[in-house]
Formats: sequence, structure tokens, C-alpha cells
Amino acid sequence: MQVSIVGITGYSGLELLRILQGHPQAEVVSIHASSSIGRPLSALYPHLRGSCELKIEEFNSRKIMQQSDLVFFAAPSGVAKDLVKDFVEADFPVIDLSGDYRLPADIYKEWYQKEAGEAAVQECFTYGLAEFADVAGKKFIANPGCYATAAELALIPLLQAQILEPDSIIIDAKSGLTGAGKKPAASSHFVQVHDNYVTYKLNRHQHIPEILQELQLFDDRIQQIQFSTSLLPLNRGIVATVYSRLKKPLSAAEISSIYRRSYNGKPFVRLQASLPSLHQVIGSNYTDIGFDYNPATNVLTVVAVIDNLVKGAAGQAVQNMNLMLGWDERAGLLSQPAYV
Amino acid sequence: MQVSIVGITGYSGLELLRILQGHPQAEVVSIHASSSIGRPLSALYPHLRGSCELKIEEFNSRKIMQQSDLVFFAAPSGVAKDLVKDFVEADFPVIDLSGDYRLPADIYKEWYQKEAGEAAVQECFTYGLAEFADVAGKKFIANPGCYATAAELALIPLLQAQILEPDSIIIDAKSGLTGAGKKPAASSHFVQVHDNYVTYKLNRHQHIPEILQELQLFDDRIQQIQFSTSLLPLNRGIVATVYSRLKKPLSAAEISSIYRRSYNGKPFVRLQASLPSLHQVIGSNYTDIGFDYNPATNVLTVVAVIDNLVKGAAGQAVQNMNLMLGWDERAGLLSQPAYV
Amino acid sequence: MQVSIVGITGYSGLELLRILQGHPQAEVVSIHASSSIGRPLSALYPHLRGSCELKIEEFNSRKIMQQSDLVFFAAPSGVAKDLVKDFVEADFPVIDLSGDYRLPADIYKEWYQKEAGEAAVQECFTYGLAEFADVAGKKFIANPGCYATAAELALIPLLQAQILEPDSIIIDAKSGLTGAGKKPAASSHFVQVHDNYVTYKLNRHQHIPEILQELQLFDDRIQQIQFSTSLLPLNRGIVATVYSRLKKPLSAAEISSIYRRSYNGKPFVRLQASLPSLHQVIGSNYTDIGFDYNPATNVLTVVAVIDNLVKGAAGQAVQNMNLMLGWDERAGLLSQPAYV
Amino acid sequence: MQVSIVGITGYSGLELLRILQGHPQAEVVSIHASSSIGRPLSALYPHLRGSCELKIEEFNSRKIMQQSDLVFFAAPSGVAKDLVKDFVEADFPVIDLSGDYRLPADIYKEWYQKEAGEAAVQECFTYGLAEFADVAGKKFIANPGCYATAAELALIPLLQAQILEPDSIIIDAKSGLTGAGKKPAASSHFVQVHDNYVTYKLNRHQHIPEILQELQLFDDRIQQIQFSTSLLPLNRGIVATVYSRLKKPLSAAEISSIYRRSYNGKPFVRLQASLPSLHQVIGSNYTDIGFDYNPATNVLTVVAVIDNLVKGAAGQAVQNMNLMLGWDERAGLLSQPAYV
Repeated sequence: MQVSIVGITGYSGLELLRILQGHPQAEVVSIHASSSIGRPLSALYPHLRGSCELKIEEFNSRKIMQQSDLVFFAAPSGVAKDLVKDFVEADFPVIDLSGDYRLPADIYKEWYQKEAGEAAVQECFTYGLAEFADVAGKKFIANPGCYATAAELALIPLLQAQILEPDSIIIDAKSGLTGAGKKPAASSHFVQVHDNYVTYKLNRHQHIPEILQELQLFDDRIQQIQFSTSLLPLNRGIVATVYSRLKKPLSAAEISSIYRRSYNGKPFVRLQASLPSLHQVIGSNYTDIGFDYNPATNVLTVVAVIDNLVKGAAGQAVQNMNLMLGWDERAGLLSQPAYV
Repeated sequence: MQVSIVGITGYSGLELLRILQGHPQAEVVSIHASSSIGRPLSALYPHLRGSCELKIEEFNSRKIMQQSDLVFFAAPSGVAKDLVKDFVEADFPVIDLSGDYRLPADIYKEWYQKEAGEAAVQECFTYGLAEFADVAGKKFIANPGCYATAAELALIPLLQAQILEPDSIIIDAKSGLTGAGKKPAASSHFVQVHDNYVTYKLNRHQHIPEILQELQLFDDRIQQIQFSTSLLPLNRGIVATVYSRLKKPLSAAEISSIYRRSYNGKPFVRLQASLPSLHQVIGSNYTDIGFDYNPATNVLTVVAVIDNLVKGAAGQAVQNMNLMLGWDERAGLLSQPAYV
Repeated sequence: MQVSIVGITGYSGLELLRILQGHPQAEVVSIHASSSIGRPLSALYPHLRGSCELKIEEFNSRKIMQQSDLVFFAAPSGVAKDLVKDFVEADFPVIDLSGDYRLPADIYKEWYQKEAGEAAVQECFTYGLAEFADVAGKKFIANPGCYATAAELALIPLLQAQILEPDSIIIDAKSGLTGAGKKPAASSHFVQVHDNYVTYKLNRHQHIPEILQELQLFDDRIQQIQFSTSLLPLNRGIVATVYSRLKKPLSAAEISSIYRRSYNGKPFVRLQASLPSLHQVIGSNYTDIGFDYNPATNVLTVVAVIDNLVKGAAGQAVQNMNLMLGWDERAGLLSQPAYV
Repeated sequence: MQVSIVGITGYSGLELLRILQGHPQAEVVSIHASSSIGRPLSALYPHLRGSCELKIEEFNSRKIMQQSDLVFFAAPSGVAKDLVKDFVEADFPVIDLSGDYRLPADIYKEWYQKEAGEAAVQECFTYGLAEFADVAGKKFIANPGCYATAAELALIPLLQAQILEPDSIIIDAKSGLTGAGKKPAASSHFVQVHDNYVTYKLNRHQHIPEILQELQLFDDRIQQIQFSTSLLPLNRGIVATVYSRLKKPLSAAEISSIYRRSYNGKPFVRLQASLPSLHQVIGSNYTDIGFDYNPATNVLTVVAVIDNLVKGAAGQAVQNMNLMLGWDERAGLLSQPAYV
């Protein structure tokens, strides 16, 4: 199958390309960006010398539909919403990695502080949290946010089992810098980030409504979540530390069995015997989850870790493609964690 | 005044020396360790060439009392409890940076998994959280733990003002590696820590009873705290992210005035207008505090940052010395944050 | 084909496993270490949960020969030399990643400060610098050292073309910490390495005779090389900065064509248009090379970068296996650089 | 004495302020920048809350001369050359940390690719390598570049002793990111720098003519130096690794005595018994030097390390101020290295 990537020069676009270079059934045939049109990608990114001969093309929905069978949008939020319409009208498969089609228009506008795309288009999209969404046969996928993926995978099994006090959820999430995008800024300057820990957008992060909306599908008594995001001085990785109170005390075995039930047959979520660290997943599509329940406080602490560029972006997008098309969910995603 | 340092080769011992090298009234006259006896410290630590000519001496309480006026213990927990007795009996001033005299014997034994020192000796010690303790004229100070310092300074004003739901406190604390001590181990190997984020000792960290005991002095309705500790891939710094629910909604101005009231005239605690980052305090004795209240969840998030080797250890020890002796609290502690 | 790995718990052993997990023709059937015998590897390394079900076995040459077709030794130097003999006697294929069989016994003893293995065994081994060695059909490969790989690949084309003043070579090499092994030590403690740059073993590094011996194969007028090694505060990667004087000035085009001639048809060495950085190769088996000639000083500066665990260890070992067996040199080695 | 700082918001400006906050004889009375005029510096830099109440002022040479006794220029190259003239005409003391007055106009223009200031003004400036310059009583100091400081202090004693082959000098220098300035750019983005090692401006770095000019003062047979600069993934610190050939072999004792002779009575240069690492000097004004001579290659390797913001910029500027005014060279510069 032939695919196109729009927004090739961002971290997610390049990671998509890297994953798809090893995919047995899909081939990237065109790559698109808003600058450097006509230049070979490997001239800008010498790590691609010898493995990618594609040139950057201007975006052109008609051409993409002629030469490809599916398009990935890996552009920043605000881009896909203006470009997706042609594909939807043509019923041509789209996987959008941005936040543009994850939320209803009014909520999008409030949290992204941008105009939303057309509601009719938005409604065509399925939110693709791959372990829980039903994407087989779907055409239009809104790939989840990176923080959202980690938080939701940590929490949904607990909601399915109805063991949490619904208003008690606090998520302390941390991300490496690739999550903050490629644009140079004071806040992404090496000197500012290195040896530092910066909490940002507290109570204003755009993944809050996304997580809430998804959690409410599994437990509609949840009204709000408390959610914080901080930058870790590293490139890849998200840690979601989730605190919540239980309705009644449970043993570790009981909690484990709740997770096992939800993730039985899901190859990319692993319940670990101890709290996971980032090294365990970096470079792979895994979500590793560990927990510890404190009877003294009745607080269950869950830690979920992902590689934000893989499971949190490009890897989950490929997983969604595989599921849409009825392929093996793992196709192209067999790279194991780098560990170091 | 002349002082001695026991445990000179640890991070806290070396930082004490560094701070005291710039102290206008105190002079380090002897340094003690359990190995390398007789060697000049600068032969082991070339950064001290030219500024410190002291040789490492064996521990000898009598000699210390002869040549000094005060002794700092900067050894790991478990050392001071066996060595302090002579000084206490002689009414000779001691500041202990370890956990040995912060807790009653039974609690110490439970959380440190070591035998405690004599209860009679322990009772002579004052817990020296410098902003709240009354250490003037005291002889024996148990210097607070690093995590504990950050957590307590974030929370005490809120407890004094009685605005929190007492059972709602969750502390997500992070530390650089100097906080984990100098001993080589798999967990402190560069490759393991770098590009990683590891949560450790969840629900078992020995600062839990220390923090709880101190908070209960200010609000005895607090039964438990939920507390987690994680390693950040950096050398210096602690971030305590504190979540708690308010009894009733408060404006930012009201919360600010609560902090200002508690820290009025305290030169080393700064309420900042936005959430603080580590860079703001590293190299200094400051504790920087910022907060954000979320009316949607009724959760108040407070972030407190310190340099764990300064305010979290050696700096606060010097501050305590200054206060004990009636000197300017800031003597020797005027170094401003390195910023980068 | 079935292979065994001896020394599975080191960085190179784990990386070998990771690469071989994606190899189309080889399967790891046994893993060996000197401790944790009988335990599943994934119990020690949770990143392997779900992808590796092997248990650690005691070393047993007979059993390895029964169940496998080839054995990798990924143990520290000094281990293989005592264990390899049985395999050599049985003409059973061995690829040794340590330094044990790269040097004649007397030179080994001088630089490694250990007794060497038997000379007769050593002489059976071929030094496997994959781009230049003739390993097809060979049984016993001494896989090159990490620093040596980078330095040799930077220099050999220049020696083949006979353009260098032979006594002018200075190599300033830098490595991430995985190159220094897994054993906890003061020198590998996070706090010591982070924010630091340490030059070590100056004029005493055991790769000096290895590089010299290999370079002399291509230009026997070379008497000595000046070689320094330093630790970079990162996990993976080697940078070899090579300075040498030219016999006569050459244009960039002339130097490029020298490299192109040597590396024509070699898929894992890329001559880049500008000086390469580590990001370009990490996670891949590539060696990227760039250069700049300074007519004012007549010095040619060449920078070669590799991932020390891939091209500098496990990747090149797999490349050698492929070449020994007449497979596609790239089998199992198609992972592209992570870039970030 | 009262001083002003022009270019307060750069790394060097802020470091100057930090050092001068602890200076016993000098006080910063005005700070200048080209933006944020009228705002308290501590509103932009919360680490200064409580220690600095100054507001940012527009540059105004007349006002500076009215309220101050000396002005530091800590602006990027190209700024001071247009602003310094008034001060020179008024014979008002200036210390310029930029490269604007270190080189003759024609060389400046060639290497900085900017127009130079007036030659008559440039000639008033003394190049202030504090250990070798005669700045007592001088009015106009061109503070040396950071790389240049490290390289020159490593080499000058060897030139004074005339032991080097003059055309054999190769300097492989590395710097932390504060050396590259504060401006956000793709090359200073955290993700690009972290876990990377980038060699830049090879054979084009503007410190080449500065170093050459200074070295030629001590040995006029030197025609050229080979010099490379690379970025280390850390904030502060420069390592200059210097290779050169000796005219004849020398013992370590002979080389040590050469350094001792040159640096006798110089408090900020320390000859160390082993190769120095960055940790030994960060936070201090020290230059640490170590060496190893290789008789096999006749190459002497010297490693010099500095904190680029202290000895490489603001610290040396203060040292120069002290020397100009006949004060203790060490005034305000007694902070010892942070070590970790």
C-alpha cells in the first residue's frame, strides 16, 4: 500500500517515515511540507542519506489521492483542519496526528484558541486510542495526543472496573522535549531546559478536555481531572503518574487482574511487576504500566510510560493504520526498546 | 568560630565546606572521614587545590571538642547516632544533617530499618526547619531532609491558615542524583539515570514520617500524606509538586497573602508570581514557591523548588548555625542562584 | 540459523539480542551469563517482557554447540580467551566482541594487563572490520573495538590513497558511557559524568595497538598514532576527530573521491557533505564521515561518528555474521537512525 | 565604586551581575539592554527576586558616565563597537566582553564578517588575558574570548619556554551551550543538542585569529594553529585539548616546572597532577591545566578547563577590573567550584 505524509519535517513526521521504512506492507510515496519544496529530504536530514530518496512536495490533495491509498497528517494543530476536507469528501483514508479532530468544535476553540474545522468533518473522525477504539474499517482517525495516550491507558481499566472515587483523579505528567515541538523558542533552548524541570500550562493544557472526554466514555460520573504537565530534560518519553482513591481497598493481585483483563490480547500494553521507567519503552510502541496501592492513604498510584514519538504519535498512527486495514496490529512496530 | 565536619567526603560534607569557605564568622578547622585518613582533601578533590589545605582526620570526639566550637555531621544515616553521644553529654553544639535524630526511635527503626540511637539523646535534638523552628540558643539540631524541607515549606503556611482538606495532600517529589548519595550502584550508574525517570521507594520513603510529624505540628487533623519520589536526570535540585483540595475556593490573592504572612521576614523563601523552575534556586539557599488553583477541580497545586545540597542540606545547616548563635541568618549564604 | 550469546547482561549482549530479534534468518536460542542462572532475562530486564522468553543459562560449550550454529561472545575482555578454545577445536563459528583475539599475545598482555589466550587460538581469528576484512567463509571473528572502528574507517581510505604524512595522525576520540561498561564505579556514577567531560587513559588506551596494527596493514610507514579518549555525558555514540597533515594540498572533491572509492558498495559507511553529528547515526549501523581541509595549516580534519553499541559492537558483529555466511550484509540491520 | 552593565540580559551580563553582587568594592548601579526598558530585571529573571532591584535602562553613555565609574559591555559582538566611542573620548573606563576590540580592523572584518569600529578606538584597547596582560592603570580592556582564554593559558608557558615545534599546534576545543549565546535557533534547540556532539565553524571560528595573535606575542615563529570547536551537551564549561610536538623529549617534572614558573603567584591558574575535568572549575574563576607527554609520538597533550561564563567571560572581566584599579585580583572571585 502507498501512503503520503503531510508535515514531514516535524518530529512526528520524521518518526512516521522511520517506522514506515520498516513496514512490510506500506510504502511512503510522497512527503509534504510548507518549505524546502523540491529538495530531497536527505539533504536537510543527513541521517536519511541512502535510505530515503524522496523529495519534499507541496501539499496537493488531488495528487496525494492519485498516488497514495492513505494520508497521514503530522502537522501541528491548526493545519489539518483546513486541509482534510477534500479527503473526507472523497472518502479517502486519513490519520491525523494533531489535535484538530479529537474534540467538538466549541471545546477545540476554547482550549486550542483557534477556530475549529467544520463540525461535519470533525464528526467523521474516530478517536483512535488503539487499544479501546473500534477502528477496523474506519476511514478517518484522530490519533490521540501523547499525554492523553499515557493517561488514558493508565486509567481506563480502573474505570471499566469501577474501582475509583470518580472525582479523585490527579495526573502528574512529564514529557521530554520532542513533545514540545521543533520550533526554536526561549523555552526550548538547550540552556533553559538542561538541568531544569519546568511545569507549564498548568490547568490550561489542551489534553485536559481530550482525556476527560475519553474517560467519561468509560465512567460518566467523572466530572473533572486534575492534570499537570512538566518538561523533563530529555528528548523522548512521557511519564504519567496517576493518583486516585479507591472506593474500597484492593489487593495488588486484584488490581493486577483488572489491568490484565483490559489488556488481554493487546500486544502493546504491558503490566509490569514494578513501577516502569522510561528506558523500558523508548524506541518501541509499548505502554508500560505499574502501580502501588497505599492502604494508609487509600491512594492508588499508577505510573504509565511511553515513547511520545512512537506510542504517543507515529507508532500509534501506524498501529491505527494496521487496525483500519485489518493487518496485523504489530506490522512495522516490532522494534524493541533501546533500553539504553 | 571554629567548626569541624564529620563525613567530609559525601556531597553534603563537601558542600558544607564550600559554603563555610565563604562564611565571614566560621572557619572549618578539622574534617573527618572513615577512609583516606591523613591525606589532604585536595589530593582527593582537585577542585579544592589552593583553597583548602586540611587533611582528613579520623573521628575523635575529644579532639573535635578541643579544637572546635561546633560540629557538623554530614555522614549517611546510621553514623551520627553512634557518634553524637559524647557531644551531647558535654553540651557541645551539634548539627546533624542525617535522619538519625529527626524521628522517635520506634518510627526511625521502622522506616530506616536500623536501630535508633538512645531516646534520651534523640530528645535533646530540635528539628531545624529554619523558617519555623526556634533554634536560637539551641545546642543540638536535626537538620531536615531535603525532600522534607521542600514539602514542608510548601505546605505549612496552608496549614497555618487552615485552608486545606486535611486528608487530601499528595506530594509528587523529584530529585537530582546528588540526593541519592555518592555510593556507586546500578541505580546511580550514568547510563541508567540519563534519559530516564525512575520512581523509587513509593510509599516507603523515610521522609514520609518526617514530613507527617512536622505537618501535624501545624494541623493535627492530618493523618497521612501520599508521597512519591523520583529521580530526575540532573545533579542538583528538588521539585515538590503538592496537590491538595481546599475547604472552600480561594482567589490567588488570598493564597498569596497566606504565603506572604508566613514568610514575611524570611529571607530564603520567595513566593514567585509563576510556577518556579529549578534554575531559579540552584546554587543558592532559596526555596521558591509558586501555585495555581483550579476551581474546576478544587485542587490547589503548589510547586516548591530547592537546591537539595544547599537549602536541602548544607545551606540550611549553616542557616541553623547562624540562628543558633544569633548571627545574621544569611551569613555565608549570600551566593545567588547560578541561573544557568 | 540458531545462535547463542555469551555475556547477555552487558550492554553489547543486550544490544545483540535486540538486533537479532529483528533478524530474518537468525534466532537466538540460548543466552549465557555468570549470574542469575535460571532466571528469565525479562525478569531482570522488564523492557524484554513479551518479546524474549529465554532464561539465562550457565556457560556450557558442549550444549551451545549442540543447540546452536554460531556463538557470540559479548563478555568483557578476559572472558572469551578462556572459553573459546572448545569452539575453535570443534571448528564451531565464534564472533568475539571483546579485545581478547584482536592482538598478538605479547601486545595484548602489555595493553590489557592480563594474560593472553593461546597464540594458536588467537591466530585462528580474523579481525573483522567489516568494510575491509575478508570474512566470507571464516569461522572465527574478532570484532573490532568501538573507538577502533570509528578511527579506522576514518583513516583507511586516506592511507589507501597514500595522501597523509604518516607520522602526523592525531585522533581525539569521545564516547558515551555505554562504552565504559556496566559496572558501577565512581567514574561511572551519574553525578560524576553529568555536566562533565573527562579524558581518561591518555596514551594508555588498549585500542591504540589495535588501531595501529590495522592502519599498518594499509600503510606500513605509520609508526605511531596519537590517540585520546574522553567521556561524553550521553549514553550512546562515538565521535572520532582525526587530524593529519597531507603530503600535498588536495581539493575537497579529490578527498571526497578518495572516500567514495573506498566505500563504493559499502552500505554502512556514508560520506556526508558536512561534518556529521551523533544524532545522524544513533540506533543504526552507519558510520558517517565528514571532513574539512585547512590549507592554512595543511591539516585535514575528519570526523567519523558511530553508535558504539551498533556499528561499534553488536551491529558490526551481526554484519560480520551476515558476511561470514554469505547473507545480505544488511540483514537485521535496517533500523534507521533515531535522529532524536 | 559604581559600575554599569550594558547587555544585561545575555548570559555574560547576568553572570557579571551575579559576581558583582558579591564584590566587596564594586556595586552595580545601572543595567542596560535594548528591550524591556523600564522593567525590573527580577520580573524577567525571578531568580533575582530579593537580591536585585534594578530596572533595565536604555543605553545612554552620558548617564552612565554620570552615575558610574566603569562600564562593562556584555553585548554580542557588533554592539560595543558602535557604543564605546563616547567613553573612550571621555577617558572613562570600559571593559568589553565581546570580540569587537580584540583584533585589528581588517582581521575583525574578515572573521566576524562585520564592519569594524574605528581603528583609533580599537588601538586604545588592551587585550586583557589577565595572567599575562599588563592592565594595571589601563582604561580600556578587551576581555578575551572564552575559547581563546583556555587555549592561550594552556599554551603560553610552553611558548615562553620555547619547547614546542611551532607549526605543530592542534587545539580541539569543546564548549557548553552558554558559549553559543541565548538566541533560540535550530542549533541551540534542546532536542538538537542533547545526546549529541556537533563540531561547528571548523577552520572558520573567530577565535582563531585572536589566539594566533596572542600566541605570536610569545613566539613569533608560529604561523598558524589548527583549531576546532564543538558543542558539548551541557550548559557551562570549556575544555581545550591541545596537541603539540616538542623540540626534544622532556620529563613530566620539566614540563611541570615550566608551567609553575609561568603561573607562580597567579591565583586563578592551577597546574593539576592529572588531566582536569570540567567539574573542577565550574562556578569558579579557575583555569585548571593538566598534561601528558607521549614519548612514542613526541606529542604533548595539554588539557585546560574553564567555566566559560566565569574565567571565560564575566569572571575574567572582574579580575581585569580588579587589576586595573590595583585591587586584590581575587576580590569578588572567591567562590569555589561547585564540584557537582
